[in-house]
Amino acid sequence: MRVQRVTVLGAGSWGTTFAKVLADAGRDVTMWARRAEVADEIRERHTNTAYLPGVPLPERLTATTDARAALDGAQAVVLAVPSQRLRENLTAWRDLLPSGAILVSLAKGVELGTHKRMSEVVADVTGGEPGDVVVVSGPNLAKEIARCQPAAAVLACADHDRAVAIQQASYTTYFRPYTNTDVVGCELGGACKNVIALSCGMAAGLGFGTNTMATLITRGLAETARLGAALGADPLTFAGLAGVGDLVATCSSPLSRNRTFGERIGRGESMTEARAAQGGQVAEGVTSCRSIRELAHGVGVDMPLTDAMYRVCHEGVDPATAGAELLGRKQKHEWS
Amino acid sequence: MRVQRVTVLGAGSWGTTFAKVLADAGRDVTMWARRAEVADEIRERHTNTAYLPGVPLPERLTATTDARAALDGAQAVVLAVPSQRLRENLTAWRDLLPSGAILVSLAKGVELGTHKRMSEVVADVTGGEPGDVVVVSGPNLAKEIARCQPAAAVLACADHDRAVAIQQASYTTYFRPYTNTDVVGCELGGACKNVIALSCGMAAGLGFGTNTMATLITRGLAETARLGAALGADPLTFAGLAGVGDLVATCSSPLSRNRTFGERIGRGESMTEARAAQGGQVAEGVTSCRSIRELAHGVGVDMPLTDAMYRVCHEGVDPATAGAELLGRKQKHEWS
Repeated sequence: MRVQRVTVLGAGSWGTTFAKVLADAGRDVTMWARRAEVADEIRERHTNTAYLPGVPLPERLTATTDARAALDGAQAVVLAVPSQRLRENLTAWRDLLPSGAILVSLAKGVELGTHKRMSEVVADVTGGEPGDVVVVSGPNLAKEIARCQPAAAVLACADHDRAVAIQQASYTTYFRPYTNTDVVGCELGGACKNVIALSCGMAAGLGFGTNTMATLITRGLAETARLGAALGADPLTFAGLAGVGDLVATCSSPLSRNRTFGERIGRGESMTEARAAQGGQVAEGVTSCRSIRELAHGVGVDMPLTDAMYRVCHEGVDPATAGAELLGRKQKHEWS
Repeated sequence: MRVQRVTVLGAGSWGTTFAKVLADAGRDVTMWARRAEVADEIRERHTNTAYLPGVPLPERLTATTDARAALDGAQAVVLAVPSQRLRENLTAWRDLLPSGAILVSLAKGVELGTHKRMSEVVADVTGGEPGDVVVVSGPNLAKEIARCQPAAAVLACADHDRAVAIQQASYTTYFRPYTNTDVVGCELGGACKNVIALSCGMAAGLGFGTNTMATLITRGLAETARLGAALGADPLTFAGLAGVGDLVATCSSPLSRNRTFGERIGRGESMTEARAAQGGQVAEGVTSCRSIRELAHGVGVDMPLTDAMYRVCHEGVDPATAGAELLGRKQKHEWS
């Protein structure tokens, strides 16, 4: 199947960047933005300065605030809204989705309360199967891809044909998507990495160096893989672009909100101060550590790093104390 | 078995740091240094300014240029010389090694010509078994550990009792060693990471960002794991401290010689210029990409990243051309 007409719902930095990739790959792309000034700017001036300052967008990329008009005739619909707002947004759009359109998820997280992954939320709302959603993941810092710097990505879907259709629709000289059938693993990798990035930021704020960051990444990846194994993911996924790749990109980048937020906490700022300094929003990892911890408890998986982040973010434990507890675990074999 | 008396052969930054760790763990440690001024400084002023400027060494740590005196009564012997010089050095020391002493290897590399791992070189020279050598690996930038920043490490040995003896001898508040029985995997992880760090440096020198670095780390880890699988390593090792951990630390650190060397090549310097700028020495990855490539060819494993580094370093291929070739590989499934 060839996908020519694509709608992107959401005009944040990753949604806009992915829309640019699709347009650069020769597709007809319409974006939906919540705010009229954003839609007007994309349509008329071919920029989105609030999210991607300095990036020229393709002229063939258009935008509207009218979801019905945006979705008309779409062969693929890209969901690019924040993870905790996906259910309410998609519920509003449900009756406008063209039948047979491939649903593509850019959101990374686990829903609070239900502990569901984003593809499960989509299936809940639309009545489809979670495995039919195409999940986009990988080392994909939006601001770099928007500048046409080369990046690889993963498109995960239980239905290989759908993944291939989106692969063809998004393949450009600078964006190289690989297909994968492990939706569960790709989504968990994407959700857990925000919590690990938060811990890397805290370690940096406490004055620790690269060894500590690399250790947190390794131990965080191990607990993510344990959770994945309990939920039926393929362990190989965590060694790939949606596991190590996404994690390393997020934890290394000074552009990561999670890392920056953690760094403020590590330097001694309160949650309120850190939140105020980042425009009133908490980082995704602060929310996710709660839902991932509950998900892990439900299947009996031990996630010490996620637990430590939960205690710092939601129980007022001092980050230095939480770090010392993590390090003070017993002498043992690496995998016991 | 309790190890109290330890000899460290080699006084570079990692050898000196590991000697400090052992002394801080309450062991009696004697270092051997090739140069008298280094031995004298360690013994009399408790510093090694050439390799660890600003780091005070424990007073109980002593040093000599006399290998016979250094090795007298040692229960464990730590080999801390460069990988390509291990065979000749160890041959000279062979008859001085106390019988029954545990041999510990800090060297990371694959020997040119023979394609042997360091534990195999040790076994060749001493007549022992490679699996009896305790291999130290993990995210261990020496200059951070020397400053007592917390780090985890892996001690790999087929004989678990030997690994535990060294674990107890090196366990401090800031250094947390885990045991592992996969010597092959830990050694390959340590050798291949230098080649991958070289590629990350080149990408940075060419102006690429964090997504590209994370992609190179992921794809490099995948080809290391393929080589490991062919040589009998445990795939889990590459997801652990001696795989991802060591790799991320080396590739992220501005302290890494391999990364810095690669960056110079990426910016357009010749091999000769880069070498001159780094004190006349080529980076370890420049040597290793040749021996690892030959090792991989021998067992029929495809390592495109290592091949690309070989072509840049030894066949004069332009790094931008090698990078474009790597990226230009066909649209496919992530693991095919």
